[in-house]
Amino acid sequence: MISQNIIATVVAAAVGLLVGGLIGHLGTKTVSSSDTEKISIMEKLVADKWESEEHLNHKIIDMVNTDNLRNNLMELAKFPHLAGTERDHQLAHLIHNRFMKAGFDTADLVSYDVLLSRPNRTNPNLITLEDEQGQVIFTSAYQEKSLQKDDSDPEFIHAFNAYTPAGDVRTEAGRGVVYVNYARVEDFDKLEELNVNVSGCIVIARYGKIFRGNKLVHAQERGAKGMILFSDPNDVALEGVEAQDVYPNSWWLPGSGMQRGTTYMGDGDPLTPGWPSTAQAYRLKIEDADLPKIPCQPIGYDDARVILEKIGGTPAPGDDWKGGLTGVAYNLGPELQDRYSNYTLRLNTHNVLQVHRSYNVIGIIKGEVEPDRYVIVGNHRDAWGYGASDPSSGTAQMLETARVLGQLISSTGWRPRRTLVFCSWGAEEYGLIGSTEWVEEHVDKLKERAVMYLNTDTCASGPIIHVPGSPLLWDPVTAVMKMVPGVRDGATVYDEWKAYQISQNVTTLKMKTLGSGSDYAPFSFYCGIPCVDMWFRRDKNKNDISIYPSYHTGYETFYMVDKNVDPGFRIHQGCGRIASLLLKYFADSLIIPYSLQHLPEAMKDALDTFKKSGTRDKIIRIYEKYTLLEESLTNFTDAAATFERELEEKRTKNLDPVTIRAINDQMMKLERVFILPAGLPGRPDIRHAVFAPSQFDNYATSGFPGISDLLHNIEELNETERLKKEEEIKRHISDLTIMVQRAVSLLKDFHMI
Amino acid sequence: MISQNIIATVVAAAVGLLVGGLIGHLGTKTVSSSDTEKISIMEKLVADKWESEEHLNHKIIDMVNTDNLRNNLMELAKFPHLAGTERDHQLAHLIHNRFMKAGFDTADLVSYDVLLSRPNRTNPNLITLEDEQGQVIFTSAYQEKSLQKDDSDPEFIHAFNAYTPAGDVRTEAGRGVVYVNYARVEDFDKLEELNVNVSGCIVIARYGKIFRGNKLVHAQERGAKGMILFSDPNDVALEGVEAQDVYPNSWWLPGSGMQRGTTYMGDGDPLTPGWPSTAQAYRLKIEDADLPKIPCQPIGYDDARVILEKIGGTPAPGDDWKGGLTGVAYNLGPELQDRYSNYTLRLNTHNVLQVHRSYNVIGIIKGEVEPDRYVIVGNHRDAWGYGASDPSSGTAQMLETARVLGQLISSTGWRPRRTLVFCSWGAEEYGLIGSTEWVEEHVDKLKERAVMYLNTDTCASGPIIHVPGSPLLWDPVTAVMKMVPGVRDGATVYDEWKAYQISQNVTTLKMKTLGSGSDYAPFSFYCGIPCVDMWFRRDKNKNDISIYPSYHTGYETFYMVDKNVDPGFRIHQGCGRIASLLLKYFADSLIIPYSLQHLPEAMKDALDTFKKSGTRDKIIRIYEKYTLLEESLTNFTDAAATFERELEEKRTKNLDPVTIRAINDQMMKLERVFILPAGLPGRPDIRHAVFAPSQFDNYATSGFPGISDLLHNIEELNETERLKKEEEIKRHISDLTIMVQRAVSLLKDFHMI
Repeated sequence: MISQNIIATVVAAAVGLLVGGLIGHLGTKTVSSSDTEKISIMEKLVADKWESEEHLNHKIIDMVNTDNLRNNLMELAKFPHLAGTERDHQLAHLIHNRFMKAGFDTADLVSYDVLLSRPNRTNPNLITLEDEQGQVIFTSAYQEKSLQKDDSDPEFIHAFNAYTPAGDVRTEAGRGVVYVNYARVEDFDKLEELNVNVSGCIVIARYGKIFRGNKLVHAQERGAKGMILFSDPNDVALEGVEAQDVYPNSWWLPGSGMQRGTTYMGDGDPLTPGWPSTAQAYRLKIEDADLPKIPCQPIGYDDARVILEKIGGTPAPGDDWKGGLTGVAYNLGPELQDRYSNYTLRLNTHNVLQVHRSYNVIGIIKGEVEPDRYVIVGNHRDAWGYGASDPSSGTAQMLETARVLGQLISSTGWRPRRTLVFCSWGAEEYGLIGSTEWVEEHVDKLKERAVMYLNTDTCASGPIIHVPGSPLLWDPVTAVMKMVPGVRDGATVYDEWKAYQISQNVTTLKMKTLGSGSDYAPFSFYCGIPCVDMWFRRDKNKNDISIYPSYHTGYETFYMVDKNVDPGFRIHQGCGRIASLLLKYFADSLIIPYSLQHLPEAMKDALDTFKKSGTRDKIIRIYEKYTLLEESLTNFTDAAATFERELEEKRTKNLDPVTIRAINDQMMKLERVFILPAGLPGRPDIRHAVFAPSQFDNYATSGFPGISDLLHNIEELNETERLKKEEEIKRHISDLTIMVQRAVSLLKDFHMI
Repeated sequence: MISQNIIATVVAAAVGLLVGGLIGHLGTKTVSSSDTEKISIMEKLVADKWESEEHLNHKIIDMVNTDNLRNNLMELAKFPHLAGTERDHQLAHLIHNRFMKAGFDTADLVSYDVLLSRPNRTNPNLITLEDEQGQVIFTSAYQEKSLQKDDSDPEFIHAFNAYTPAGDVRTEAGRGVVYVNYARVEDFDKLEELNVNVSGCIVIARYGKIFRGNKLVHAQERGAKGMILFSDPNDVALEGVEAQDVYPNSWWLPGSGMQRGTTYMGDGDPLTPGWPSTAQAYRLKIEDADLPKIPCQPIGYDDARVILEKIGGTPAPGDDWKGGLTGVAYNLGPELQDRYSNYTLRLNTHNVLQVHRSYNVIGIIKGEVEPDRYVIVGNHRDAWGYGASDPSSGTAQMLETARVLGQLISSTGWRPRRTLVFCSWGAEEYGLIGSTEWVEEHVDKLKERAVMYLNTDTCASGPIIHVPGSPLLWDPVTAVMKMVPGVRDGATVYDEWKAYQISQNVTTLKMKTLGSGSDYAPFSFYCGIPCVDMWFRRDKNKNDISIYPSYHTGYETFYMVDKNVDPGFRIHQGCGRIASLLLKYFADSLIIPYSLQHLPEAMKDALDTFKKSGTRDKIIRIYEKYTLLEESLTNFTDAAATFERELEEKRTKNLDPVTIRAINDQMMKLERVFILPAGLPGRPDIRHAVFAPSQFDNYATSGFPGISDLLHNIEELNETERLKKEEEIKRHISDLTIMVQRAVSLLKDFHMI
């Protein structure tokens, strides 16, 4: 009986199990393994890893290590590493090994054979003063005095200006030397006004304010037969010139410090302007290369004093012509003072041009979802000497950034959505050669695939961040600056930047656009790739000098940086943190975080400058259709605003991965629209029509440079030339208007042409 | 007791149900509605609709309707529709309405104000013969005799050659007329050899063999003061010149038929060479435009006989100089025969240049998955007259193609993966103006987004298909030709094409690359977009003439096509079927069906031509590094083969939609690599470095045109010029080598630069 009950119960339970199981099973839709795979793929394709993995950002900030940065710099700055030398090559291998050690997918040394310039080791460049018997009563130094073991390398390159020709020029007795201040256009105009003619003279100019290459061009154009460049105490030794006032006891420059540097006005190998220096490539004959024609030599202020104090003639027209050499009147010349009326000045240089092999190191972390989209960081490796600030502070940072992101992969399994490309450039100091040749070789692929380029050259020469760049990058850079601690405890890099801007009476907080002078130039001005150039600079409230004192001299040593510039390496740390985070931001964000509206805004600012300066009226008189450019810019502003608003809406919906890719393509190609295939009028290799270096100071930026270039000195042209130039201006403004309209069109719905 | 059992049983069953239900439930993974959505989106993104919806292809073949095609053509060719006229504008609206009726997402009239050329209606262009009293004893006709109601429109434009200047030139009595055969370079060389000097003469040439614009340039360069162009019976009336032998009774040309046509050597509006003629754009002054300098006028063979029979002087050097005018010796001149020694020939033209508004019609079917990828079809609308073949046979086809694809959407719910763009171009006959201005306006977007461009101009002038195009399109075009029935029952278009090639003793079956002469030119030569130009042509086995006889004359009527060219409209039908299927093929295929390997293959063929012609040796003597170009081409061949092999493997795996997009981008940008930003040497608007029209016959194609251009007549240069030219050749070959290397690099793994 009981057994029966048990049986009944068991059967009932079994039936219940079965039926219930069936119900339970049928009651829910099943999903096959291929479906789950589809779902997980889909989820990966639309994941925003920047937002979802925020904890990694804090990890990155913690990982960037000051000891590593200090050790990196010590190693990099131990010996001089001039472009194309054995040490330069060794460092290329060191960087290659670090990339591989960091776990990069690939790293390669890429070489180009390029034309470089060097002084003659056994026959140094000399400036001499001779009396009537030809007795040499003064000879200039050709290398710095050794003051500390860090600056005592016998191999250190002698003072010279790259690509200036070997030459032997001398003045007549007692006359033929002219002091030309900073050798700017306005300085030569002033001399003309004072009837001081530089033609046939040796001119002497102080470094600073503008690119030295422009100084030489200005002198050459006005008929000077030679040029001497010196570092004035007012620019490099503001607190005195005595031993205790200068390096190694401070960051100020001693009297024998000489600023080396290139004078080449183009970018890249002078023998392959506009095309890459590959083995297969054609080369110009050296005599056809566009190189300086007159000899030029840099000296320190001790030697400068000896020359300057002998100059008589026209007195300095004002304090802005007077430097910091006590007891020197800074007369203009061309006469020497009476008691030196039998002296002649001689400039005798022996620089040689020679083809050398230069290496780039390209390291790659492959993107997981979009391997064909490149987020690029670059820094040059070559230096005029020890390069402790320029560029090794940047290299120290890049190596740490590589280590940190590499460790993120190995320790957390993270992998960027897009591909990260690390570039160590060669021969930058000679004219951005390594980066330019590489960009020229891969121009199509880069224009097609590059999301952004982050450059650091001298990353640490002071506490204040300076990040000029494409307006498309202004907001994302600001966002990262707000995440990173500054040098003062409690403050972020952004706080310190903002405080500094205010202290400088900057009313509207705005980033700046790019001038030239480092390796972002080919990316931005030749390809239209959004670029940012990050460095920490001196505090101009303390002293408003053009550049840190030891720049390009024999005293730019590890000791200098470790003791006088960034003790504790907090500045380097900020640099590494911002670089790491900015790269991850652009590599991982689902929608590329460009700030679109700032582009038309910055273009409008450039036009407003024309208004303020009266240039607008000048243009209107030539071409009334200029107003159409202004109108189209208003349309561009509206189009960008609409695009960003609609994008915000779209993001709330679940966008499919192909649509996301298409939206990113649209934004990525926006700045490319402003590339003129044939380049700016008369400047085939500067193709960016909106933001490019001014033609009259390679370091300075200029909005709509083609317009300024074409208007330059137009009044001085004769009738025929002027009318021709006016047609060129009309044509160029028409091109600009058409490009702005293309930008508007690019932001339309995908299917609209 | 029993009740207890029952309770126990029920409880057990209930528990069983519950537990079993849970097990059943937990035993299977559930899928949420958002997951199912993800799956369905994913499936749509990776669907290959070309393969999965094959039944639609048969549907398309059935839908393309001969009655529609005939009615379209009847409507389009009813009245003359010269560029910029009221009728041209009406047809633009007709096409716009048809697009909207077909269910397009958008359709727009896009206008440009461009410089056109017309004869003076009230003061026609005349060629006269006068005796010594100035008695006019012959005056040329300026319009065709009306032979049929279809060709009797009083508004029909008088005979003229567009952009030739108004002019009034006359010979001296009894001499100064030279017959120059086809006015090719070799013809003028022959005349020089025979000491027949054309300088200061009026030259008379037969139409055919090369573009008329080149004929005029050749005459102008050699100092002729005027030119007369005539259609010779040997080219247009091979079966006799009597009424019963010619139109309307056959397709052959009557004696008063005159071929109109442009002589402009550039593309696009002559006032905006290289930039779009938008309202905002700058314009050249008319006197600065690059237009012909000497008057030129076309005549029929009846009038040509009157002039030719009076020419004496040097006899024709051979049968290849003799045309089909019976009783005419085709003497060369420059003397007239003795009995006409007091006659003078006068050419008096009154053409006027004027800016007119020209319209393009752009119709769009929005893509479902990749709306920002464009598959484009285009055909011009303007004609010199009724344009029944050129271009209205193509327009008739495009309208039917639009209807068919539109109906596919409404009847089956189909929508293309990529966007379809239909273009009706204006002012093509004057120099590809509508298409060129549009491409110049949207160049960036098109280079970024266009997958391919299919052109049809004269789609039906004979039974034999001719589809020159980018090698990247050769296989897909062939595939579609194999799907479409030919004019003979049972045969496909491919079968008929193949049979024809064999009948022409073509050993290797290969498509041809593009010359210029229609609207694909700006897409291909300015942007590097893969293009194909489809038309059905005369059977050269029957008669090997340059072009169908009524081309650009007053007899190119609907009647002509309906009776003599395509009765039953089977040719038009083939045209419409191939167009519809080819568009769908490129719009719907998941992987764009380019034939990659044919590109390096065709480039290799071009280099082989240099070998055969001895040009290679000539180049090697100038630049031994030419062999590096040959080597890089071998690398390109290998890279393309590897890419296609690996792609086949990848396809077997399930590729995610972003990877698919990336692969398509890679292939889509391949031909773009060969665009020279600054254009070919001396030809800024022809930027395709590999395949472009020859400089000496605008209709003919030339492989590596820059090389041929630079080598042309190099022997005749003086030392200095020759050395300069040789450097240009080196530089250009270096550019080519670099571009081929870029192509190789583009086909590497996504993350490799």
